[in-house]
Amino acid sequence: MSQPVGHAAEVDAAMSRAVGLAARALGRTSPNPVVGCVLLDVDGRVVGEGLHESAGGPHAEVNALRAAGESARGGTAVVTLEPCRHTGRTGPCTRALLDAGVARVVIAVPDPTAVAGGGAQELREAGVEVLVGVGGDAAAHVNRAWLHAMTLDRPFVTWKLAATLDGRTAAADGTSRWITGPQARAEVHRLRARCDAVVVGAATLRADDPHLAARDLTDVVQPLRVVLDSGAGISLTARVLDEAAPTLVVVADDATTDHLIAADIDVVAVPRTDAGLDLAAVLAALHERGIRSVLLEGGAHLAGSFVAADLVDEVVAHLAPALLGDGRPVLQGAGITTITEALRLTTTDVTRLGDDVAITATVRRDS
Amino acid sequence: MSQPVGHAAEVDAAMSRAVGLAARALGRTSPNPVVGCVLLDVDGRVVGEGLHESAGGPHAEVNALRAAGESARGGTAVVTLEPCRHTGRTGPCTRALLDAGVARVVIAVPDPTAVAGGGAQELREAGVEVLVGVGGDAAAHVNRAWLHAMTLDRPFVTWKLAATLDGRTAAADGTSRWITGPQARAEVHRLRARCDAVVVGAATLRADDPHLAARDLTDVVQPLRVVLDSGAGISLTARVLDEAAPTLVVVADDATTDHLIAADIDVVAVPRTDAGLDLAAVLAALHERGIRSVLLEGGAHLAGSFVAADLVDEVVAHLAPALLGDGRPVLQGAGITTITEALRLTTTDVTRLGDDVAITATVRRDS
Repeated sequence: MSQPVGHAAEVDAAMSRAVGLAARALGRTSPNPVVGCVLLDVDGRVVGEGLHESAGGPHAEVNALRAAGESARGGTAVVTLEPCRHTGRTGPCTRALLDAGVARVVIAVPDPTAVAGGGAQELREAGVEVLVGVGGDAAAHVNRAWLHAMTLDRPFVTWKLAATLDGRTAAADGTSRWITGPQARAEVHRLRARCDAVVVGAATLRADDPHLAARDLTDVVQPLRVVLDSGAGISLTARVLDEAAPTLVVVADDATTDHLIAADIDVVAVPRTDAGLDLAAVLAALHERGIRSVLLEGGAHLAGSFVAADLVDEVVAHLAPALLGDGRPVLQGAGITTITEALRLTTTDVTRLGDDVAITATVRRDS
Repeated sequence: MSQPVGHAAEVDAAMSRAVGLAARALGRTSPNPVVGCVLLDVDGRVVGEGLHESAGGPHAEVNALRAAGESARGGTAVVTLEPCRHTGRTGPCTRALLDAGVARVVIAVPDPTAVAGGGAQELREAGVEVLVGVGGDAAAHVNRAWLHAMTLDRPFVTWKLAATLDGRTAAADGTSRWITGPQARAEVHRLRARCDAVVVGAATLRADDPHLAARDLTDVVQPLRVVLDSGAGISLTARVLDEAAPTLVVVADDATTDHLIAADIDVVAVPRTDAGLDLAAVLAALHERGIRSVLLEGGAHLAGSFVAADLVDEVVAHLAPALLGDGRPVLQGAGITTITEALRLTTTDVTRLGDDVAITATVRRDS
């Protein structure tokens, strides 16, 4: 921030509100980011707010300007992401802000993408006062999946694990129902709803026949259910193939898929590797379909393959206050042999879910 | 609580304060409980406070009465534990309260011990209004080690573990420095200071040569360092044998201990079992020495033996946001084979220690 902000307290409050608005749309906007916007009039009063509700729909700025009407003239637009200056399915937001006569635009996070970036510069050149970086941490955090996806050129991968305090997901005899309690299990459905895709491996599919849709929530955009099934051996009666949400089966490019195609199942083939599927190619295929955030759910070996390939960006650990002392470990085959190779993360959130604890942490990358 | 409390808000605040006073003495009072007391005058104003600082020293009530002087007359004594009515190293508190002319005594937790119990009844018979159960949860929690020890007739055992999110304490090659960060490691010293004894096994002793004293803290009563060493093989140069704190070596009753006795090391012998030492006998020996709270520190097999013997009462898990995927598990040999046998706990506290998370949980026992 290069200069003091007029109505600083009102702008800060508006940015917090805008971040909250953006968060509402998580899981709905891909391939677009989540964006929230609050409009203040010349006296710093809130006169409009909006969010980008879904891809193809109006941008946050446009929704907020509509709500504000003439009150926006001479006022301030507070927006979580740099306004676009390109014409996609909707017109450029820079144009809309200029047409409305907004005098100042306060931006939390610059847009890293070439096609849409440059909005701040365009507004400045048109005589609008532009401030960038206000409330950037919270705005970057709510949009972290999209921002990471744009930087890494692949979807942001969150690994959700559920284990005992000693890192077990099942007892020695394989029994596992239930490790975590009902509040943690309900939270998993909210995690699914906030992501674009949910990924499982064939081993988990065979063992648990999971459904993977976001259930018991209203007004949900269901994630794409993605099954990594190198041998194309998925049962046609698997629950994940029902109508509750779309499903994609990713197979190895040497697998026979006629029976899946015949059953009208969406299939994509990627190269096979020693460990199974080429996971970078899996993520590239999902990225191409507009998937920006992926929730990785079990099992231990699939998670290990993602960790070994350095393709995990965030971990959400649901830990139950229970001890098993033996049984199935939560993570295997990550390829780490010594402590200096440990995958280190930064804790971003700790929340109690009944007796369970949810720890959210982001993988540290020094690049 | 059978009746409304006059000056209810003042009494509640005084009880919170009394619990805080009691907490200050954790690790200092064994074999006695921790107790805090706040005195209110007839108008509900705080006129004195005190805690039981150490065994043999004055009880909390006496310290608070001294501070209050004549202002206690007609007032209320708010105390975390039922006042004693016996003459130990100090006179009975019931007598002191009656002599001071206190009109009302508000007690959080009844005293479960036969020798000291009955104080409430004695006060009632002397015409004092007595209320029991006010703020009982917090007062029972701060005193849980002593209360459990009195009920179970053995010390309260807290297992402290430090692990990655996937339950590993070392990488595949055995390297482990460091899993947790400096704030968690500093907290371990505070945990030690709040306990009467710190217990390790011979395997950890050989591997890590730990020191086990509470370091970098002022005004600490050091815990008794207890080494479980069935074969009496401890090196005479082990750091745990230095002068920083007292040390007890527990050996099997068939072990040769002449070299330890000759070195003036405190040794106690207990029966040998298939798994090593008879852990119930170990705790009985500690109980006899006035130890009421034990902090169990690594390793995985020793913790497993305590869990298998149902001798763990609380777990403090320091979890680092890191993944190893392989390496030494935090708990082994707990004898649990199926999910219904999992040791289930109730989470009592979740605290961030820098990037690490401390989860404190109490073992559920339906007895």
